[in-house]
Amino acid sequence: MANKGKIVPVPVLRRMPAYLSFVKTLQKQGEKYVSSTRIAEYMGIDATQVTKDLSHTSISGKTRVGYEVDSFVEVLEDFLGFNKVNNAFLVGAGSLGCALLQDEGLRNFGLNILKAFDVDPAKVGTRVNDVEILHLDRLQGMPAKYNVAIGVITVPAECAQEVADLMVGWGIKAIWNFTPARLKVPGNIAVQNTTIYTNLAILFNKLHSSE
Amino acid sequence: MANKGKIVPVPVLRRMPAYLSFVKTLQKQGEKYVSSTRIAEYMGIDATQVTKDLSHTSISGKTRVGYEVDSFVEVLEDFLGFNKVNNAFLVGAGSLGCALLQDEGLRNFGLNILKAFDVDPAKVGTRVNDVEILHLDRLQGMPAKYNVAIGVITVPAECAQEVADLMVGWGIKAIWNFTPARLKVPGNIAVQNTTIYTNLAILFNKLHSSE
Repeated sequence: MANKGKIVPVPVLRRMPAYLSFVKTLQKQGEKYVSSTRIAEYMGIDATQVTKDLSHTSISGKTRVGYEVDSFVEVLEDFLGFNKVNNAFLVGAGSLGCALLQDEGLRNFGLNILKAFDVDPAKVGTRVNDVEILHLDRLQGMPAKYNVAIGVITVPAECAQEVADLMVGWGIKAIWNFTPARLKVPGNIAVQNTTIYTNLAILFNKLHSSE
Repeated sequence: MANKGKIVPVPVLRRMPAYLSFVKTLQKQGEKYVSSTRIAEYMGIDATQVTKDLSHTSISGKTRVGYEVDSFVEVLEDFLGFNKVNNAFLVGAGSLGCALLQDEGLRNFGLNILKAFDVDPAKVGTRVNDVEILHLDRLQGMPAKYNVAIGVITVPAECAQEVADLMVGWGIKAIWNFTPARLKVPGNIAVQNTTIYTNLAILFNKLHSSE
């Protein structure tokens, strides 16, 4: 990892994929250099913020011409972990779980879901997008066997803590929690909460308050 | 809408679905009352924060017993807009777009994707989870005809601005942007950016910095 095990502030990590996306678009258009000012204009933020954010990485610009587009893309993808394959297990092959199994985008951004787990007999033994669905009882020993550090939780919220406990017990080091439940895990376990439905509440509020 | 068109701070809206999830779990367990202290302990925050957040809603607790669970769930779901059907169009029936079309959870949280649009001849005319995929050219006039205010963007990032412009031109009032692109839209248009891959970057950073 280019970030050398250093914690990067979350607001910086939230902006970086937008920088990457913008510069990749320029790359497709055949552009060779981009200035921090141009990135800042695209983002609607100050250019000093852009240079400060990028100082976390090994990206460096040249006076007058700016950042070299190809190396910007390569270094930033590497820094964000999108170039590496991070294997994961997913627990909860319901509607959202199966949706994630079918999203090829995750693989492009470094997440490879190796196997999925569920307790529903109708699902166990089937495959979604070529990923095998196993009974949750079989999670035992699997993270170590397959060298998997990441667990994705897409079960109903009331089962999320139980699944998190199982994952931690079997060696998962980082949990991507798609449920609105707040998980209690040991301090050395990384948790990232992503409740896309929360974003809906924010969108509805913006929409209805502007009506 | 119970929130009566008032803008609610985003951090409050981010916590509320977790409150709702917790109280719904208690409801399933047959509990009748919940105190702000208990919600606060679950969340790992201060009880005064919980009461302050809930003061945005019409939820009121009783001294000693706390909030009545059934009415808490009903009022909060209504407040967050999850009880109402909000029709939407989705543009970009690729991997992520089709994943969203297959996620029944969105409907449970108030978002009903009526139709999807794409430019790929192989996709146009097909259906995903019973949602028809139309050519993007047909978006014209559709938001007004179907009274649709919300547009979901799941196209490649470099096409996102173009799609946003079309949506705004045809009467969309709120955009749920799943791409890392930053959209430029008129001030009266609500935009919510949800880049799930950004959450991956944050998760990878937490994981690798703790290794």
